[in-house]
Amino acid sequence: MPPRTLKLTLAYDGSAFHGWQVQPGKPTIQGTLADAIESLTAERLLPQGSGRTDAGVHALAQVATFQTSSSIPTANFRVVLNDRLPAAIRVLAIEEMPHDFHARHSARAKTYHYRIWRADVVPPFLARYVTHHPYPLDEVAMQQAAALVTGKHDFTSFAAVDPDRTLRLVEAVATEVSNHNEPQTTNVRSIYESRFERHGDEFVYIVRGGGFLHHMVRNLVGTFLLVGKGSIAPLDIPSILAARDRRAAGPTAHAEGLYLVQVEY
Amino acid sequence: MPPRTLKLTLAYDGSAFHGWQVQPGKPTIQGTLADAIESLTAERLLPQGSGRTDAGVHALAQVATFQTSSSIPTANFRVVLNDRLPAAIRVLAIEEMPHDFHARHSARAKTYHYRIWRADVVPPFLARYVTHHPYPLDEVAMQQAAALVTGKHDFTSFAAVDPDRTLRLVEAVATEVSNHNEPQTTNVRSIYESRFERHGDEFVYIVRGGGFLHHMVRNLVGTFLLVGKGSIAPLDIPSILAARDRRAAGPTAHAEGLYLVQVEY
Repeated sequence: MPPRTLKLTLAYDGSAFHGWQVQPGKPTIQGTLADAIESLTAERLLPQGSGRTDAGVHALAQVATFQTSSSIPTANFRVVLNDRLPAAIRVLAIEEMPHDFHARHSARAKTYHYRIWRADVVPPFLARYVTHHPYPLDEVAMQQAAALVTGKHDFTSFAAVDPDRTLRLVEAVATEVSNHNEPQTTNVRSIYESRFERHGDEFVYIVRGGGFLHHMVRNLVGTFLLVGKGSIAPLDIPSILAARDRRAAGPTAHAEGLYLVQVEY
Repeated sequence: MPPRTLKLTLAYDGSAFHGWQVQPGKPTIQGTLADAIESLTAERLLPQGSGRTDAGVHALAQVATFQTSSSIPTANFRVVLNDRLPAAIRVLAIEEMPHDFHARHSARAKTYHYRIWRADVVPPFLARYVTHHPYPLDEVAMQQAAALVTGKHDFTSFAAVDPDRTLRLVEAVATEVSNHNEPQTTNVRSIYESRFERHGDEFVYIVRGGGFLHHMVRNLVGTFLLVGKGSIAPLDIPSILAARDRRAAGPTAHAEGLYLVQVEY
């Protein structure tokens, strides 16, 4: 068979994994997928995701691509791959794509949700799927703060400061070059939607943007929680952005409330 | 403090526990609760549940009682107990009850749900919370079969055959004596409601009765699944009941779809 480029749409429970990216000796989404594909096709390859997710972060529709020369018909791949994967990772769809399609380089926008459980008790069935914050929060102020990050901004204040930074910047450049819509060697990103919604006992942050820096959603949520507690005001958000300094913003919110919900191409 | 009788209403994710009943060296709901209470009150006691749940069975509102001489006000007990319990067990409510109230002896009816996931793919977040059956089922025939177990019947054909049987019968007698509504040394039970409901991709069995034998709900579901597959007809249910022989009914359905939903007093 000539090689095909396959696009996987994946849901996963990130609780039991050390994030997306393959790591020696640790269970990761990418490594588990690679093992399942190898067991079917005898090809050792690494599926490329639309981006990494950290340990404990979930996905409703992560996208990954890989090339295969296997003879398995595309229409059958989803079922046989799900048979080899643990129940915590499910392939929702597989499609054949043009050879120049790439899960990360071709992505035009992503949507994340962050679920904050506001009631006194988290149902045991949701313990790994929401962040618990039963204490008072000024949800109106949080809405105002969330709206103030929409648009095109330098998000350095909300970017992880970590040893992988240089690598991530190089990756970001590759992404943005192919997206044709962001400056290259900077932390400037475009946010199209940024708001909270109440769903029963949940207060959910919804953010959609052209690209995200490492930890950016969790750092935004950690900062909005400070607004909710009254430690900072919504109108402090512009100056936090202008500071271009991680120390100006709030702490990184827990991973377990975060979901990659959609990747648009 | 004079001893108080406290009634706990509990939700739990049964996945990580070896069922309700305390067992040496194994995590159980009852044992974990006893440890949490002991750490608060320095009293070693075993909370009495409305009944046992098997390994992997969940509860939305199990009820348990215990006596305590601790000075912790009843109104505070829920919060301090939840602080000591793992996230998989949550105390939803604590109330002080008359001294003759007993979670099992005073129970008048129980409701169980059994969740069958009918779509091709189980979302990873539901993997431990539903039983997967994506193959064809005649859901109308299953409805008919379910209706045929309502009323007062000898459920021997649906009762677990296990070494604990004698003990369980003794317990059943104790329950039914106090319920004043069932014969004593038999497997006769009264079922008030027995039906299936469709909720999106789920086909849910709902059963409410005065008492249940060990494995009875899972054996009913296993038999209804045979009806759905066409192996037996709905109208075979009366003769399966009449056989009073476990071999006449279907297999025991998996534990993970089963929930204890309500206990009525």
